[in-house]
Amino acid sequence: MTSRKEHALKRRDLAVNKLTSLGDRIIDDVAKQTVPAIRVPSRGTSNIVYDEDRRYYVLGDRYGQRSLGNVKQIKKIGQMVYMANFCKGLVQTGKTATLREMYYVSEGWDIDFGDQQESNIVGEDLEVTLGITREDLGLMPEEDGASVYGDITLKDDDVEINAMRMGKSGYTISPTIDEVELLDHNVERVIAVETMGMFHRMVQENAYKKFNTLIVGLKGQAARATRRFLKRVNEELGLPVYICNDGDPWGFHIAMVIISGSAKLAHVNHELATPNAKFLGVTASDIVNYDLPTDPLKDIDVLRLKELYKDPRYRDEFWKVEIKKMLKIGKKAEQQSFSKYGLEYVVDTYIPEKLDAL
Amino acid sequence: MTSRKEHALKRRDLAVNKLTSLGDRIIDDVAKQTVPAIRVPSRGTSNIVYDEDRRYYVLGDRYGQRSLGNVKQIKKIGQMVYMANFCKGLVQTGKTATLREMYYVSEGWDIDFGDQQESNIVGEDLEVTLGITREDLGLMPEEDGASVYGDITLKDDDVEINAMRMGKSGYTISPTIDEVELLDHNVERVIAVETMGMFHRMVQENAYKKFNTLIVGLKGQAARATRRFLKRVNEELGLPVYICNDGDPWGFHIAMVIISGSAKLAHVNHELATPNAKFLGVTASDIVNYDLPTDPLKDIDVLRLKELYKDPRYRDEFWKVEIKKMLKIGKKAEQQSFSKYGLEYVVDTYIPEKLDAL
Repeated sequence: MTSRKEHALKRRDLAVNKLTSLGDRIIDDVAKQTVPAIRVPSRGTSNIVYDEDRRYYVLGDRYGQRSLGNVKQIKKIGQMVYMANFCKGLVQTGKTATLREMYYVSEGWDIDFGDQQESNIVGEDLEVTLGITREDLGLMPEEDGASVYGDITLKDDDVEINAMRMGKSGYTISPTIDEVELLDHNVERVIAVETMGMFHRMVQENAYKKFNTLIVGLKGQAARATRRFLKRVNEELGLPVYICNDGDPWGFHIAMVIISGSAKLAHVNHELATPNAKFLGVTASDIVNYDLPTDPLKDIDVLRLKELYKDPRYRDEFWKVEIKKMLKIGKKAEQQSFSKYGLEYVVDTYIPEKLDAL
Repeated sequence: MTSRKEHALKRRDLAVNKLTSLGDRIIDDVAKQTVPAIRVPSRGTSNIVYDEDRRYYVLGDRYGQRSLGNVKQIKKIGQMVYMANFCKGLVQTGKTATLREMYYVSEGWDIDFGDQQESNIVGEDLEVTLGITREDLGLMPEEDGASVYGDITLKDDDVEINAMRMGKSGYTISPTIDEVELLDHNVERVIAVETMGMFHRMVQENAYKKFNTLIVGLKGQAARATRRFLKRVNEELGLPVYICNDGDPWGFHIAMVIISGSAKLAHVNHELATPNAKFLGVTASDIVNYDLPTDPLKDIDVLRLKELYKDPRYRDEFWKVEIKKMLKIGKKAEQQSFSKYGLEYVVDTYIPEKLDAL
């Protein structure tokens, strides 16, 4: 087995090669006296398809041509080449930059961006053109990932970390999680929860012992680093992943993006999606069966539920039934609402019953 | 020196005593056949005063009387007593609950709250009436605090933690930071930055070595736990604290709330404010001197700057000059904008120059 460090170095070599070849192709074109052009896979809606086998969105095979022969495309190509060159420097020195920093760095170039939105899009162009992730190019998201508590040992550079020996808030998944080695663990599963309130409840009620589990605090919509971590523990360590979110369309979809990826990131879902992860959060049936404190669905909740009903990622019978039921009862409930029965109830009663019912 | 554990146990004892005496006083009143009443210090604007000596907002000495003889106040007193009883249970068992859980717990009581806003206010009533913090009562904020990187060793329960051996995202300050012992350190100062993007830049450029510093990533407005941590490292360890935020009214005020507390929390500022902390972030002068990439001030920025100008916490000449200058140039700048001069510039040039100028 190769170590994560070798793996990371290989990915870096690959990134440098791909970045270099982008420039080489342009130089070759010039040498051959043809007009330089770059093929950029299309990210338009019509080229985003749900792959039934892989169970996530992928890009189709349509692409656009960016040519230096087209006056409108010259600036775009210039930006791409400048950014590719900057990224090559990052990867070669083992550094990273945030998208925000990348945007400001361009202020020192001869060719600049109108705003950060524009530089972000060129970053995605580069990702999709080269077929590697932004993180492989050294471009990191601003935000950290989830918190992890439980008996897993990681190696980040030369530091060994045990996520049960880092204080009550556990280990924070850093944007560079791909370079972190999963050394050892002593758990049977992974339970991710939507809020840090629930994370601390799980830690305090010893859920990590009771269920022999890692506890992951998602902090809302899961960061890319969190999704990489969940995919890696699922696929590299063979641990089942359960997502225990609130019982509303937003909680459902935070889970679904972890499971089946997002349409917007169709070109990198193969690196991010964990199709074997399971939703174990609050359902409409739970709201009824546990007589939970609820809030009425707002118009925007109803609208969102109807969208999810039509979304191919929700085509399982389970989702059809639960979405229809939630629309019918017109109510939603948060996971913390189980506190009605005492703070311990969610760990002592609810989660065991949900795990049993799987 | 007493250990933090003993200190925490003492605080717990104190909390239990205060909670118990709240109930005792009511029982005594009944025994003496007087109508039970509770004195609640007023948190109205007219009772919030800026204390020039302590350099933060405190509560004045006005208070209101809540009496069971007043029909309108009966429910409020009932809620307070129920909550006090619940908190006593929390403190005695060493548990905590989020404000959200607290609200849901009340759904199982005979007396409930209309919404969470109402239960939060009763929580503050309890805090101010007993003269101890919400955290002492076991009521924790939902969110975690800042990230800390650098050579400090902490002890949380029986686990020793070194914030340089926890991965690239460092140690996360947990809501229960008051029970964490500051065991040992090998740094000269603490530099807090507003964003995690800048935090990772500082870690990557070895700022912790170059400045022999802890690096704290505030993640925007500092959580109560973060403010406790900064106060403790400043006062218990004697480390100077510098806050390096963005150059806009929001960055200024994130720093100022750490330094001089907030008006809303006047009753606990003595536990939260760090009056010796210094703003070391981007100023209007920096924007001009370093020719930084900027954004124009929006109407709301201008409005906010004018508010800050009148705020007693900004009465130093330094702030008067810088606020006026920012209004005059009509521009703001983020700390990451130094990337215009290369990713290393902020650590290699800017921060050293700022520290020298102090």
